[in-house]
Amino acid sequence: MEKSNKFKILDCTLRDGGYYTNWDFNKDIVKTYFQSFNSLPVDYLEIGYRSNPMNSYLGEYFYCPQYLLEESKEISSKKLVIILNEKDVRPEHVKDLLGPTSGYIDMVRIAIDPKNFKRALVLAEEVKKHGFEIGFNVMYMSNWENEKEFLGQIKEVTGIADYFYMVDSFGGVYPEDVKKTYEIVRDQTDTKIGFHGHNNLQLALINTLTAIECGVDIVDATVTGMGRGAGNLQTELLLTALNAKGLLDFDFNSLSKVVDPFEKMQKEYGWGTNLPYMVSGANSLPQKEVMSWVTKRYYSLNSIIRALSNKSRGIEDNMDLKNLNGEKKFKTALIIGGGPSGKNHSMAINEFIKNQDDICLIHSSSKNSQEYKNIETLQIHCLAGNEGHRLEESYSNMNIDNKLVVLPPYPRTMGTYIPKKLEEVAYQLNEINFTDKFHESVTSLAIETALKLGVEKFFFVGYDGYTGAIKTQELELFNENEYIFHSLKNNREFTPISLTPTQYDNLETQSVFALI
Amino acid sequence: MEKSNKFKILDCTLRDGGYYTNWDFNKDIVKTYFQSFNSLPVDYLEIGYRSNPMNSYLGEYFYCPQYLLEESKEISSKKLVIILNEKDVRPEHVKDLLGPTSGYIDMVRIAIDPKNFKRALVLAEEVKKHGFEIGFNVMYMSNWENEKEFLGQIKEVTGIADYFYMVDSFGGVYPEDVKKTYEIVRDQTDTKIGFHGHNNLQLALINTLTAIECGVDIVDATVTGMGRGAGNLQTELLLTALNAKGLLDFDFNSLSKVVDPFEKMQKEYGWGTNLPYMVSGANSLPQKEVMSWVTKRYYSLNSIIRALSNKSRGIEDNMDLKNLNGEKKFKTALIIGGGPSGKNHSMAINEFIKNQDDICLIHSSSKNSQEYKNIETLQIHCLAGNEGHRLEESYSNMNIDNKLVVLPPYPRTMGTYIPKKLEEVAYQLNEINFTDKFHESVTSLAIETALKLGVEKFFFVGYDGYTGAIKTQELELFNENEYIFHSLKNNREFTPISLTPTQYDNLETQSVFALI
Repeated sequence: MEKSNKFKILDCTLRDGGYYTNWDFNKDIVKTYFQSFNSLPVDYLEIGYRSNPMNSYLGEYFYCPQYLLEESKEISSKKLVIILNEKDVRPEHVKDLLGPTSGYIDMVRIAIDPKNFKRALVLAEEVKKHGFEIGFNVMYMSNWENEKEFLGQIKEVTGIADYFYMVDSFGGVYPEDVKKTYEIVRDQTDTKIGFHGHNNLQLALINTLTAIECGVDIVDATVTGMGRGAGNLQTELLLTALNAKGLLDFDFNSLSKVVDPFEKMQKEYGWGTNLPYMVSGANSLPQKEVMSWVTKRYYSLNSIIRALSNKSRGIEDNMDLKNLNGEKKFKTALIIGGGPSGKNHSMAINEFIKNQDDICLIHSSSKNSQEYKNIETLQIHCLAGNEGHRLEESYSNMNIDNKLVVLPPYPRTMGTYIPKKLEEVAYQLNEINFTDKFHESVTSLAIETALKLGVEKFFFVGYDGYTGAIKTQELELFNENEYIFHSLKNNREFTPISLTPTQYDNLETQSVFALI
Repeated sequence: MEKSNKFKILDCTLRDGGYYTNWDFNKDIVKTYFQSFNSLPVDYLEIGYRSNPMNSYLGEYFYCPQYLLEESKEISSKKLVIILNEKDVRPEHVKDLLGPTSGYIDMVRIAIDPKNFKRALVLAEEVKKHGFEIGFNVMYMSNWENEKEFLGQIKEVTGIADYFYMVDSFGGVYPEDVKKTYEIVRDQTDTKIGFHGHNNLQLALINTLTAIECGVDIVDATVTGMGRGAGNLQTELLLTALNAKGLLDFDFNSLSKVVDPFEKMQKEYGWGTNLPYMVSGANSLPQKEVMSWVTKRYYSLNSIIRALSNKSRGIEDNMDLKNLNGEKKFKTALIIGGGPSGKNHSMAINEFIKNQDDICLIHSSSKNSQEYKNIETLQIHCLAGNEGHRLEESYSNMNIDNKLVVLPPYPRTMGTYIPKKLEEVAYQLNEINFTDKFHESVTSLAIETALKLGVEKFFFVGYDGYTGAIKTQELELFNENEYIFHSLKNNREFTPISLTPTQYDNLETQSVFALI
């Protein structure tokens, strides 16, 4: 690496870190941020988005109102940058979005899906009229080889964008990929090239240094790597490495001062890589989905990896099972979820079941299923997602008399897993159609199964909801279930009734103790 | 990277992670660890040290008693490894240390400073008699180019060790360094080569993959990177990356199971890289020292980096100042520390000072110094370590009438920094000799200064100690001060007296309120 290599550095902590804080930041931290960077060798600070109004609360740095730009400009001696999401912005929005930024902002970046590259060129022409420097942040770099159309369009950026960024969206590229992609872009245009690395595999530093060696003109980083999912190259790591190589000199106390408050925030919000992010990075999967599958327990890492690796080896583990025909009908179903009440009140619930003469049990979770092992009526286990593995682990002494297992329609996103001893009683639904969403949810599967069996009376136990501090993923699961119950009521006009305490608004309640 | 590349993987989580837990681990976590690894493609598990008795408490996995090896062997299907610290083990200890491990342990590794390489060869001959595989873990790889003698000795390892490890002790090597060093070693011996990477610069993965490409035969990793300071290559990252490259297949659920409890421990203990570790890695400094300097506030990162960079550029920033001659004598000194009592009781303390006719003030911290700005007797500020910068920041309106600043003896470890306006009143001590340790402490500097002025009566305020949850570094500072007060009492027979509440046993106490 030569000293003559005059690349620029852009810090986008506030913009990319906003994914964790919903784009609101403590004023004192922002002040420390701008003041510290005034004495650090960084050229651009990207402070946020400019956006049309969205349908949910998004904070100050997602909209960057004019007063905020004015304040930032006053305190900062750096070039300031905002970014636009190409998918949400059309040329006719540009005047309203960018007019107020004039005089405060030096560069406008545009986040671009390569599939929309042509459309982005038109948008950029409009932005250019306002006199900004323009950065193209083209995403999904590790998949570009499959984007033949886009690859043929790269050259059209010449004369429009000031920087053409390769964005390693999945955090899965290696130094050799950076080199290869750099050459592909360089062959097509003499526009300055940039690199934005993610840190799923902790390769952001080496990839960025490799990009600098290749000759890129600008690289991105954020303080403590703050940014969506596994996050970015850490500004402090880049600066420290460049300093040790003798390429940069600066005030480490200023660096330390700005790192401090963000390290504290990191303890609270927890950005940085972890096993699901590594898996998504290594396999170029969207980390948001992988994280959501794993934390909602839809799929385990194993089923994700197995499905991926089977796919890449051409192994078909997606079995097309017999369809559940619903020959045997029931008037009533008791759907048993995994909440504590399904265990705490199991004696009463067992009594209740014995008093019914036309009821089937549908287990949407394996968690409480052992509590009902002596019930002799039909018991159905729903094996959506990873539930097959969990059932096998938690209920090893299960016998198959009066048992069925039901799986979602074929083909299933992550393949098929059925515990060996249950294979002969395994069926799939031919479709899930009472709800338009959440077809991978065990609750959807349980309800559609009941409908298939002619059920008209829907009782639920073990659907308690969540108390205390609720995690985001729990809240999402809760909202999913609410939507599913609502669909059952509205689309099929059946009333779902919980016999145990519940927080779901869409469940009517009766007490199991009143019914025995 | 070819599939034919049959390298082995060694996980040393319990051995290296012990630096955080003092080598004690929860039994359930250990069980999960061994059981999970039984279904993971890892060849060796290094479980701890074997050691002669040491003079402080060190836990189970530092000594690995026979029952522990037996238990481990029973539950684990992997080859088990222990490590010896060459600096503490001589050939005559080998029988006692390794006899009891026979039948349980497959490999004995030896951690070796390249300066002691010859001695290690003799030790290894003795270990070999017991029939173990032998690994040489040769440390400080980034400094080997300066170890000419060692470089000439590498070839002697042939026929003795089974694996010769390159250990990136500082976490500062880059892939190109790995290649270069690999070639140097390969040229000298056909012994199998290993690589142990540290993660200060988040280069452990790329360095390890580079080593594998070079053709090393074994690489190390630990779960979540658990290990001293910034830690190691994460086992889960290595396995995930190798899996995505199609080199390994395994059960990700087992991996996830073992990562889980260690991630929880990581939240508690906090291993992983941070700015001081990055700085130490990038500059091949011992991370333990850098961390200790920074957290004890002896030196700021800036002074460390500036001293390093001045040194590497041949700039001499170590100024040889006038020695404090002690012409003016005082019978009494009030040494003012940074504790809250120096501020809370400052009115009473000011009164007390005014009532004394032969007293000087010595500020060992800039924290409370403004509280005494109206005192007209001589005030001395001690500028050990980073105190010069802190004084400048916290007390910008200070005038220099009746003021002196005193620095430790020349030359100072991290150079000299004196705020501009104080330069003409700056002196250094010619020596610190009332205590044999802690010559970089501001308290030592304050006391030696008082002795120089002929002081016989030592009063202290603002030396409160610490309450509530005490951090390790606070405890260390506390113990340092205790030692320093003890030295003053024992070596000079003066009684240090605190006028404000204190937790130091070596300070006598009187109340400032009784003396005004």
